[in-house]
Amino acid sequence: MKGELSVGKERNQKILLARRPQGMPVPEDFEWVEEEIPQPSSGEVLVKTLYLSVDPYMRGRMNDQKSYVPPYRINEVITGGVVGEVIASESKLFEEGDIVLGNYGWQKFAVAAEDELTKVNPDLAPVSTALGVLGMPGLTAYVGLMEIGQPKEGETVVVSGAAGAVGMTVGQIAKIKGCRVVGIAGSEAKVEFLKNELGFDAAINYKKTDSIREELTKACPDGVDIYFDNVGGSISDAVLSLLNHQARIPLCGQISLYNLEKPDIGPRIQPQLLIKSALMKGFIVSDYADKFDEALKQLAEWVNAGRLKYKENIVEGFENTVDAFLGLFRGENLGKQIVKV
Amino acid sequence: MKGELSVGKERNQKILLARRPQGMPVPEDFEWVEEEIPQPSSGEVLVKTLYLSVDPYMRGRMNDQKSYVPPYRINEVITGGVVGEVIASESKLFEEGDIVLGNYGWQKFAVAAEDELTKVNPDLAPVSTALGVLGMPGLTAYVGLMEIGQPKEGETVVVSGAAGAVGMTVGQIAKIKGCRVVGIAGSEAKVEFLKNELGFDAAINYKKTDSIREELTKACPDGVDIYFDNVGGSISDAVLSLLNHQARIPLCGQISLYNLEKPDIGPRIQPQLLIKSALMKGFIVSDYADKFDEALKQLAEWVNAGRLKYKENIVEGFENTVDAFLGLFRGENLGKQIVKV
Repeated sequence: MKGELSVGKERNQKILLARRPQGMPVPEDFEWVEEEIPQPSSGEVLVKTLYLSVDPYMRGRMNDQKSYVPPYRINEVITGGVVGEVIASESKLFEEGDIVLGNYGWQKFAVAAEDELTKVNPDLAPVSTALGVLGMPGLTAYVGLMEIGQPKEGETVVVSGAAGAVGMTVGQIAKIKGCRVVGIAGSEAKVEFLKNELGFDAAINYKKTDSIREELTKACPDGVDIYFDNVGGSISDAVLSLLNHQARIPLCGQISLYNLEKPDIGPRIQPQLLIKSALMKGFIVSDYADKFDEALKQLAEWVNAGRLKYKENIVEGFENTVDAFLGLFRGENLGKQIVKV
Repeated sequence: MKGELSVGKERNQKILLARRPQGMPVPEDFEWVEEEIPQPSSGEVLVKTLYLSVDPYMRGRMNDQKSYVPPYRINEVITGGVVGEVIASESKLFEEGDIVLGNYGWQKFAVAAEDELTKVNPDLAPVSTALGVLGMPGLTAYVGLMEIGQPKEGETVVVSGAAGAVGMTVGQIAKIKGCRVVGIAGSEAKVEFLKNELGFDAAINYKKTDSIREELTKACPDGVDIYFDNVGGSISDAVLSLLNHQARIPLCGQISLYNLEKPDIGPRIQPQLLIKSALMKGFIVSDYADKFDEALKQLAEWVNAGRLKYKENIVEGFENTVDAFLGLFRGENLGKQIVKV
């Protein structure tokens, strides 16, 4: 079988969900296991992981609750986006050396059915971007902003979690569309990056202000037309108080709430939405699968033209996967958090 | 001048906002004044009030806050929908005896500019319906349900404040559209009316249940696709926990919150909207002014065909206006609350 030899005596390693986290996940919630490297059957390929993705949404799947994606199961591998190299193929669609995008998650090798993989073009951009600006986060930013936010020239767009993979893409697309863009992030380094590297009109460090509402009022003299929300909680309360008539709020994530052990309470937001005729819409990128081709083409065009920058925070070593995931909730990552295996 | 004589020695009476209510309004928040009946100048008409409208939204306008409509001013008349008869005209567009719809509010007589009035056709339906099912509440129900809710056959629609003028119209339109309809209201009489007279599939008396969520779960075995919200507060919390994927929530009113002196707090709703890819949209009927012609035509057609029933709670006597208004918040009205002057 092709490729078998290239693996030599190496064994597969995978990370399982050992138990459901209570609040903030801890390393003990995960289990490392080793096994023989699996072999592909007909119509399957063996993929060696090059880069794997750790994402905030994975926290939700660790709970046992009905959501847009089913929860992870105990003692099964944590699945998620992976860029890998085909090292053995029993499929006519893939050959050794192909770079592919899959969803087999936190493991060094995996056998995947040919219909579970898509090819990544290594000439278009570094292949890791298939997990970021030219992958799920980039698509999330694009469809959420364009389909729900519907930005118009001259409008003001506020984005929370602005230095994350989704947030920084949202802000840059909004700039391309002629909007005033204000980012909210959690460190001085992030705020400086957003303003100086990505051209945001203003950026606010929510950890270093007495009143985020006051800072926002200064940064948004004409109010807020679109609030792309990755964060939730009291940051959102402040933004919602500044909405304009017919404002739109794509609801992408609520990272401030993911690790709470009880439902969070806060001021009811319906009165704000009511008096402003505002629209709030939760979404997951797959709701807009019919837009992916158009979106990827546009994103790649902007990346290649230098109009859309991306930033990857690449952690080296499979053994650091869990820590890279936990880092998302410590607010450490600037840009897309990726593990290079 | 035509019509002057018909008024005789009668004087005008009007109700002003004396001060901004704190919490639930009290009679002392209003002031009655008498004055000479005004006379129309060129392009104006003198209208005698036949029916005047008291509506929940008026409570919001009594606060000094930025909203979709400007707040009422102290010492000025409470404006709102009125059906009246033209008793003197200095306009080529109106003649004595015309029945008109205006917005001059809580007064027995008023001079109105010709462009502030629209004619009401007394052959179409009783003229008071221009304040209800064929007026603002009916239009609100129609555009909110059709434009935001977008009901599809077989879906489940929950409506709060279901025995109010807007709510009962929403439920009946949803039935016409082939939906399962569940109403939430605050008395046994209302619940029976909704089920027996209007054909709702189920109705829940929120004042007579230990767990509204449990009752809703029984009444909505396939979850909730549309929640037309007139009420807010803990009733809404219960409904939101039962949303289906891609649910829609037209946000029409929040009567449970109007008289609170502090912002209400409750469980944050963004996680529910997020995991269900749900849409929530605040609106005011005037956002959809371009749909009014189509909507009125359709509503009148349904009313005349007996497919859309309406109910008016007519209070007799101008002197009972304030009490009729306060009754809205005591949950007394079944259907459109109207004062016959």
